[in-house]
Amino acid sequence: MQALYWDGHQLQLREIYPEPQVQDNRALVRVRLAGICSTDRQILQGYLGFTGVPGHEFVGEVVAGPPALLRKRVVGEINFACGTCDWCQQQLRRHCANRQVMGILNADGSFAEYMSVPVDNLHEVPENVSDNAAVFTEPLAAAFEILEQIHLKPGAETVVLGDGKLGLLCAQVLHFAGARVTVVGKHEKKLALLRQLGMRAVMHADWHPPPAEIAVEATGTTDGLAQAISIVRPRGTLVLKSTVAQAHTLSLAPLVINEVTVIGSRCGPFPPALQALAQGQLSVTPLIDTIYPLTEGLAAVEYAVQPGVLKVLLRP
Amino acid sequence: MQALYWDGHQLQLREIYPEPQVQDNRALVRVRLAGICSTDRQILQGYLGFTGVPGHEFVGEVVAGPPALLRKRVVGEINFACGTCDWCQQQLRRHCANRQVMGILNADGSFAEYMSVPVDNLHEVPENVSDNAAVFTEPLAAAFEILEQIHLKPGAETVVLGDGKLGLLCAQVLHFAGARVTVVGKHEKKLALLRQLGMRAVMHADWHPPPAEIAVEATGTTDGLAQAISIVRPRGTLVLKSTVAQAHTLSLAPLVINEVTVIGSRCGPFPPALQALAQGQLSVTPLIDTIYPLTEGLAAVEYAVQPGVLKVLLRP
Repeated sequence: MQALYWDGHQLQLREIYPEPQVQDNRALVRVRLAGICSTDRQILQGYLGFTGVPGHEFVGEVVAGPPALLRKRVVGEINFACGTCDWCQQQLRRHCANRQVMGILNADGSFAEYMSVPVDNLHEVPENVSDNAAVFTEPLAAAFEILEQIHLKPGAETVVLGDGKLGLLCAQVLHFAGARVTVVGKHEKKLALLRQLGMRAVMHADWHPPPAEIAVEATGTTDGLAQAISIVRPRGTLVLKSTVAQAHTLSLAPLVINEVTVIGSRCGPFPPALQALAQGQLSVTPLIDTIYPLTEGLAAVEYAVQPGVLKVLLRP
Repeated sequence: MQALYWDGHQLQLREIYPEPQVQDNRALVRVRLAGICSTDRQILQGYLGFTGVPGHEFVGEVVAGPPALLRKRVVGEINFACGTCDWCQQQLRRHCANRQVMGILNADGSFAEYMSVPVDNLHEVPENVSDNAAVFTEPLAAAFEILEQIHLKPGAETVVLGDGKLGLLCAQVLHFAGARVTVVGKHEKKLALLRQLGMRAVMHADWHPPPAEIAVEATGTTDGLAQAISIVRPRGTLVLKSTVAQAHTLSLAPLVINEVTVIGSRCGPFPPALQALAQGQLSVTPLIDTIYPLTEGLAAVEYAVQPGVLKVLLRP
């Protein structure tokens, strides 16, 4: 099969033999669409020393595996848990100590024609959710994780820093959940999209923030964190959504003085994300920038990592 | 009156005229004992640009003010609130936007014979609490703040990093509240004290930490924070008690990956601290290192800031 392969130095389109096979507790999935994420950019910069097929966002079709799943459209959670470690036994499978992570850590991902995914990780896509929407399930679930972690009160003054793909999804989820959301970004086109959806959205240069009850750091930059710390009100909450691998240089004294709560937030639950898509409560397909065929995957990745580009998808 | 005075460059023992006077909503307090805290060391290094009389830990006697308080022994909360700003109106007086802070920000403190304190900030000391114990109320309240901020479950595996004065108080409060506490420190004498009180206490060099449900950073160093981040288990909680003014250089990615909650924690409620002292549930007087007369205050401060020294008190 064809796949993009990262050997630690170079990303290449390769023929891969043997193709992934169906195994115990796994399903073979034919990828219909895969999404390129900022984490993929970090992987191509050496993050976690990954080598293999990147990609952890997809919608696909089960072509081999348990009969109940055959020919179903599915999306898949990215953490492949061992099921036996302390964290798994405490129902923290996403934090499994021995986990593989699809396209990120010791497991091939979705920039390929086929992939092998643990059956436990698959979720069937409701019929009325298009492929173009379903491919957003993984990052949308990560946005929904915020609602699992904090008690969002109706009307809570919430600032989302960053108008990247994850920032736009977090903003929508928080808006949908009843917060008063302001998004601070750098791309007028994206901010206009948010305004159409009923949110306040301001260019970073024009922004004079009042203290926020809740701030969501989704810029993916070290500067973003320092700014986020500076705008949270006393006893407020700062949600960190960006995995910034570089070291920050900043004083955390304001967190102590203002008694801020900082919450690291990573992957989230798929069912509420799928439900919100099925009920049409969120608008994800306008976030699609371009769909490339997998055979043009190198050009797609090169394009996707440019600043300001929305979601780039690959179609095998 | 005599007081220690920090002019931004030098700490001096001075005669201060006029003495503090009683004013509306204030009481004049004769200081019986004052405690030297690590924050005082930071102030003498330029923290917050303070000038004036440092000191924010004390027990004293009201010598002028409302009749109900006259001749009472009192301790006092350090944040002098305006009562009218947004935070005050939301009962967040400790976070008042216009606050003065005793001995720290625009208000003279307790390294003096007398001080003027807002009546609202004073708490009467129960009769059976000695001066030597009562002078710990302020830092003890800061330790109790942790219990206001997190839901501490019985038996929670809790690591306190740092065997400084605040670390020792935090450890006792968490132990008293039912956590399984391990203190990691650098001074065998202090660790022995904790073991006598029923806690585990290990030298930093001998420590092989299992992941902690709750970690309390009380080292007051930039290294301590990086270490604290590394020992918190997935979905665990890290309480920041140190106000480290210097910039940290560290990656916060582990907070995101492990979905850690970080809680900045500063001043706390006086009533539970006084109650715990009155009921003899905590052992604070063994933390006293030396009591100096105020006239030897310069030597006292010089001694107090040495590593490993326990609480140094001043008696005017």
